[in-house]
Amino acid sequence: MRVDYKTLEDNFERVLIKHGMKISDATKVARMFALASADGVHTHGLNRFFRYVSMIDKKEIDLEKSISLVASLGAIEVYDGNLGPGNLNAIKATERAIELARTHHVGIVSLKNTNHWIRPGYYGLLAAEEGMAALMWTNTCANMPVWGSLEAKLGNNPVVIAIPQEDGMAPLLLDTAMSMFSYGKLEKFVMDGVSCPVDGGFDKDGNITRDPEKILSSRAPLPIGYWKGSGLSLALDMLAALLSSGRTVNMISPEPEIGLSQVFIVFDIKSLPDWRLSIKRMKDALMDIKSSTPIDPHRPVRYPGEGLFSERKKSMAEGVYCNDELYKKLLDM
Amino acid sequence: MRVDYKTLEDNFERVLIKHGMKISDATKVARMFALASADGVHTHGLNRFFRYVSMIDKKEIDLEKSISLVASLGAIEVYDGNLGPGNLNAIKATERAIELARTHHVGIVSLKNTNHWIRPGYYGLLAAEEGMAALMWTNTCANMPVWGSLEAKLGNNPVVIAIPQEDGMAPLLLDTAMSMFSYGKLEKFVMDGVSCPVDGGFDKDGNITRDPEKILSSRAPLPIGYWKGSGLSLALDMLAALLSSGRTVNMISPEPEIGLSQVFIVFDIKSLPDWRLSIKRMKDALMDIKSSTPIDPHRPVRYPGEGLFSERKKSMAEGVYCNDELYKKLLDM
Repeated sequence: MRVDYKTLEDNFERVLIKHGMKISDATKVARMFALASADGVHTHGLNRFFRYVSMIDKKEIDLEKSISLVASLGAIEVYDGNLGPGNLNAIKATERAIELARTHHVGIVSLKNTNHWIRPGYYGLLAAEEGMAALMWTNTCANMPVWGSLEAKLGNNPVVIAIPQEDGMAPLLLDTAMSMFSYGKLEKFVMDGVSCPVDGGFDKDGNITRDPEKILSSRAPLPIGYWKGSGLSLALDMLAALLSSGRTVNMISPEPEIGLSQVFIVFDIKSLPDWRLSIKRMKDALMDIKSSTPIDPHRPVRYPGEGLFSERKKSMAEGVYCNDELYKKLLDM
Repeated sequence: MRVDYKTLEDNFERVLIKHGMKISDATKVARMFALASADGVHTHGLNRFFRYVSMIDKKEIDLEKSISLVASLGAIEVYDGNLGPGNLNAIKATERAIELARTHHVGIVSLKNTNHWIRPGYYGLLAAEEGMAALMWTNTCANMPVWGSLEAKLGNNPVVIAIPQEDGMAPLLLDTAMSMFSYGKLEKFVMDGVSCPVDGGFDKDGNITRDPEKILSSRAPLPIGYWKGSGLSLALDMLAALLSSGRTVNMISPEPEIGLSQVFIVFDIKSLPDWRLSIKRMKDALMDIKSSTPIDPHRPVRYPGEGLFSERKKSMAEGVYCNDELYKKLLDM
């Protein structure tokens, strides 16, 4: 079924308030979940919401905790997430980075002791809505082998780059983990009875394989670019922990995955010289990308962010796609 | 043969001055080339030096041109490289980013209209020598297909992350392009008569292949992480061009590859709260990585930067490995 966007958002908000969240926080978190569904990122929208509420009820998410300032260093601010709600912490960190960027042209917020931010791309889009560019990343628990070993010593450490566009074009939004496939994706391949479309991980003997069952059983998914992504994941982890004075991947236990380190860098585009020319050049470059002759004529080339932008437009016009049962469950809460 | 480090550096400097470079610039550039050889990055050291000098002689590198300030925005400074020597521009940009970081805790220098910086990792190491962490990247000419097409619309856009360590440990140094293999590497595979060890690119029909000849003939090397690296490359290009008011990949012609856009972000670690604890945690994390059980017992797990650090120590103690013929050629210049 398709549900009116505002109705969906209102229902998220209503349930969050009922389960103890402050109104101002609930408004922000409800928007995050509703837009994930509207953007077609269903795993991080309605489908995820119930688990989130259950974590609140079980006190695994502590609504009393919020971010607090550790150090103010001009354009940089270091915050302690105090193990508060990861998405709310990330929203506040992004909002603060945007404020810092208005003053200093760049705003850098680092955040330690925070929790899973749920949908990485949302924070990039928040900055893009304010006409700002963003570079953000998080560490995670160890869920990926370090190159040369089968031992899971690395996080998949998602990275976000977001850049707003003009003239009705979709913001560029890169939202990518350092693993080739998430565990969720590997599980879906198994359910669908298909192989990974490209190398996806290692079997128990350390051979690279496309067999999702073997990868799930060895718990050794492949980093993007093999050894290159292994190095990139490690470097991002070290930098996030260093900038936030927070935990490194090897200090973060997998269950529950808490106490993460994150970095939010936001650039105020409009303070840069020739920014209008830059926006124009960027548009030309993206249009050039889109004009590339596709290998499969039925799959035109798109830039990152385009798909969800058109999905969001459709959701706003025709309603947000929701699983009937889950939406009923939401209404009953 | 092995050549005393200082002698090698002095000879580079002598030749650069003889070919018209200012003494202060020649000292910097000579060090860059000598350390590349000392670190075992021979392709960017002595082996590359002659081509560099020949470009000076042919006026393809204009020694009269240097970076000039376009805009000062607190912790951010935007520079025009004025199509000057790419490595010298990058050294100056790094030095300026370090100075900015001393004042602002973070220093961000963006650089437009610059040229090939030769060895990306060098600039990260320059920051690490000053006890600072660095995140830097460049765009390039279009040398990699965009995902879904065989048209080379993306750059391989190398990224550097460098973080100094204490207690005699190697600085962490990630220096990686967004392509799985460089053209040079693919050519070497052909010469050696071997396949790429993992997927390396596309054949003319758009099938993924490990055959280096097919990849060279289609000019379609694979991005790291397939579609993920394609998006990452594009996002890095857009961000570099935006921050520097410079050219995007699609504006940069391949021959000669000039007028690039680069970003140098440097963090003053010692202004961060609990930085000593962070350094200690980082050391623990890296030692934990190194302690991983290797898949191949003869190949212990290392972190990025370790290999060249031990190579440099050996070069400083025993002399820098130089090809006999090339070293003689250098002496004769």
